[in-house]
Amino acid sequence: MRHVLSALVMNQPGVLAHVSGMLASRNFNIDSLAVGETEDETLSRMTFVVRGDDRVLDQVRKQLEKIVTVVRVIDYLGKDYVERDLMLIKVATEGGRRLSEVKELNDVFRGKIVDVSPEHVIIEIAGQESKVNAFIDVMRQFEILELVRTGRIALTRRGSITQDAASPDPQPAEAR
Amino acid sequence: MRHVLSALVMNQPGVLAHVSGMLASRNFNIDSLAVGETEDETLSRMTFVVRGDDRVLDQVRKQLEKIVTVVRVIDYLGKDYVERDLMLIKVATEGGRRLSEVKELNDVFRGKIVDVSPEHVIIEIAGQESKVNAFIDVMRQFEILELVRTGRIALTRRGSITQDAASPDPQPAEAR
Repeated sequence: MRHVLSALVMNQPGVLAHVSGMLASRNFNIDSLAVGETEDETLSRMTFVVRGDDRVLDQVRKQLEKIVTVVRVIDYLGKDYVERDLMLIKVATEGGRRLSEVKELNDVFRGKIVDVSPEHVIIEIAGQESKVNAFIDVMRQFEILELVRTGRIALTRRGSITQDAASPDPQPAEAR
Repeated sequence: MRHVLSALVMNQPGVLAHVSGMLASRNFNIDSLAVGETEDETLSRMTFVVRGDDRVLDQVRKQLEKIVTVVRVIDYLGKDYVERDLMLIKVATEGGRRLSEVKELNDVFRGKIVDVSPEHVIIEIAGQESKVNAFIDVMRQFEILELVRTGRIALTRRGSITQDAASPDPQPAEAR
């Protein structure tokens, strides 16, 4: 099973190495990782997709919480949340002959064509992982030249994580 | 200066720890990192945003290339490429009173409203980093409850990276 977990971390050298070293030493399986800026320039948020059962997830969470530069861990298990993944995919259009087919499928999936050349198109597509995967599947009839994905990010459907009873910190950065 | 760099890596335990350990030990400054699946299930692609001058970028590239589990490094410096960043942002709408204002700005930026409650909305917005930053700026007039970003991903505007003269590998995964 796959679980989404995120950690607010301090922007200090070595935080990523520390977190990923811990994950590797315990053989936790990470499918994707996105590390991006937050509202607070002193903090970044890491969003992980971890493979394993609830026990594994619980271990990852506890180990993350032990790291001093980790300000907060958010476990999305059992929570109502929105998750999104972003992909750029480059597909061959055979000298433009198959461009209209690609465009039609792009419209169905509400993607955005962000680059066109005589030989290929680049499409940007965001959505739930299953939608992005389905789009890759329909693109297989063309030649997929390259693709890159961000890995998932997530937000709970509640006001803010300060409302989370499990939260020990009085002033999380996102709630300012 | 900020540079975008990506690495195709083998899906093996410890690769992320190895790469991030190298970056930390050399004090390279990483602004964002996205690690996601590729067309080839044995490979992932890491996209970094590195802060520093050309010399720093060159060092990062060379150090990455030394890592056995790194299959290929792509340096976007001087290349024509598309880059995208994805954000989920949760904004307070004051009991729905300011919802129409938020919706209007969302339309201007071509975002997607992915969740609405009486108290807040969650907006998904993808685009170049500058667009995402500009959207954050206009949202500051409301209360930003939470935001999460993926970090940048990139693709060159060429056919495929096999056409890259600097490429030493005869069969990169993306070109199959």
